[in-house]
Amino acid sequence: MHFIMYQVDGKQYLGIKQQSHVIDLKALSDEYCNRFNQSPPVLLTDMLTLIQQGDKAKTYVKTLTDWLETNKDTDLSVKHLLDDVSILAPLCNPGKVVCVGNNYMDHCREQNVEPPKKPLIFSKWPSCIIGPEAEILLPENSEQVDFEAELAVVIGKRGKNIAEEEAFNYVFGYTILNDISARDVQFADGQWVRGKSFDTFAPLGPAIVTADEIENPHHLAIKLDLNGEVLQDSNTSHMIFKIPYLISYLSKGFTFEPGDIIATGTPHGVGVFRNPQVFLKHGDICTVEIEKIGLLKNRVR
Amino acid sequence: MHFIMYQVDGKQYLGIKQQSHVIDLKALSDEYCNRFNQSPPVLLTDMLTLIQQGDKAKTYVKTLTDWLETNKDTDLSVKHLLDDVSILAPLCNPGKVVCVGNNYMDHCREQNVEPPKKPLIFSKWPSCIIGPEAEILLPENSEQVDFEAELAVVIGKRGKNIAEEEAFNYVFGYTILNDISARDVQFADGQWVRGKSFDTFAPLGPAIVTADEIENPHHLAIKLDLNGEVLQDSNTSHMIFKIPYLISYLSKGFTFEPGDIIATGTPHGVGVFRNPQVFLKHGDICTVEIEKIGLLKNRVR
Repeated sequence: MHFIMYQVDGKQYLGIKQQSHVIDLKALSDEYCNRFNQSPPVLLTDMLTLIQQGDKAKTYVKTLTDWLETNKDTDLSVKHLLDDVSILAPLCNPGKVVCVGNNYMDHCREQNVEPPKKPLIFSKWPSCIIGPEAEILLPENSEQVDFEAELAVVIGKRGKNIAEEEAFNYVFGYTILNDISARDVQFADGQWVRGKSFDTFAPLGPAIVTADEIENPHHLAIKLDLNGEVLQDSNTSHMIFKIPYLISYLSKGFTFEPGDIIATGTPHGVGVFRNPQVFLKHGDICTVEIEKIGLLKNRVR
Repeated sequence: MHFIMYQVDGKQYLGIKQQSHVIDLKALSDEYCNRFNQSPPVLLTDMLTLIQQGDKAKTYVKTLTDWLETNKDTDLSVKHLLDDVSILAPLCNPGKVVCVGNNYMDHCREQNVEPPKKPLIFSKWPSCIIGPEAEILLPENSEQVDFEAELAVVIGKRGKNIAEEEAFNYVFGYTILNDISARDVQFADGQWVRGKSFDTFAPLGPAIVTADEIENPHHLAIKLDLNGEVLQDSNTSHMIFKIPYLISYLSKGFTFEPGDIIATGTPHGVGVFRNPQVFLKHGDICTVEIEKIGLLKNRVR
């Protein structure tokens, strides 16, 4: 399933994206509960609440969508045309955004740095998350705003000291994160969080694709296109530390909570290490595409 | 007012701490609304919700406590004895914890480093916050767990590009944060967030003292005591970058949200720079005290 958050007439909804339309999950649940005279067993108000309710919520959503399949008369009342809605960030309030630096072999090579012996961990503040239709704002205090295409893992349940072989059980799904970075601020500060967390610096989405749909998250084409020119073009197979290792490593000592995001690092081709360097400027269109996950396009202002 | 979160019989409450007791704000509000036949104008369930409701909530709480003063018969039903409750972290789910490094002149001197020319900003993940009665857990992957007494500022309203002279209007109140740090992990990682964010690494509290009670947050004695020995002993007057400057500087480019925490840095005397070095060990009692704010005491395990 492709879960999204979207907006119509100023109201926000949790939905499932299909070809040309989106299913309003709350409306579908109300319809279903009415028909069978029961109370909704889970809240379907927003993504974090959905994820926090765990397997119970997943099972109920499956029940709802299966029922919809066989009840075509319900169809119209619980759907919006995609063209009529604004798609928001699928998850705007995770407890933490954990980022992994230098996690693609090709990205280490372009910087002439040794691949790290253990994951290089940093952080972005959740307040910089935006959706696929919002603009990346160039802050006044940076001349070097860069892009980074990344596969993002969304954690599905609470866990600590998670074994590598258990790690995939903690994954709710996957989405795309564009790790926008003010290079001048990032490098001058030394600690990266401020230069990585200016408002709008984490375009996220468009959908969270549930883990069951992605057979192998380490075999997905990942690309970034700036104004029609492909600047990053790699595959998640080139990740140095794979997702189960990252989850296990990180959970030694700290607790993952439902909705936490891990941005798994970016491949080669980022602007600061190109010759000549490329930085984002007003009017640019920056598009990240990951196979089977989707396409995240943002304008720069 | 000294706002706290506390627990009785497994249930959590938002309260106001007085000498030997705590006022259950939700119960007081219910009593008040019953008496005057009105609906509660604000939610008094937890600290973040309280702060997010802004001035309206502050005004209502003032109305409630004033009314209580003159209605001694209501007194007993809405109070718990402090001895009968567990005090929790006053705020366990802030959107971000923004930390300032090397922000005391005396702390720079003990490291033989030049005072920074601009604030050194890093981050702790909110999942490591604990209350005053919880234990600091020594993680398996560190041999060098250190303490840092800090004055924490709690942001009261949303803001960006805040002028220095407006900054205090954005402060809800103050509390204490003990910035526990696994020095070996922090320095080996280079990026500090992981070594600063192991579970239980942010003891916070006990109360959030509202800004109106603290005439000058830059004139408060700040101390840390380990097993009865005073190891940090300074005054917030020695901060290099003062609170209004920090709020203004940080809000250039990113948005503060209600409940965000700024940990304003620690004075000299931390364990790693002592000779001989001092690190936390099982059974230690670590107590931070800040004048007019309170006393935050945690056992180490």
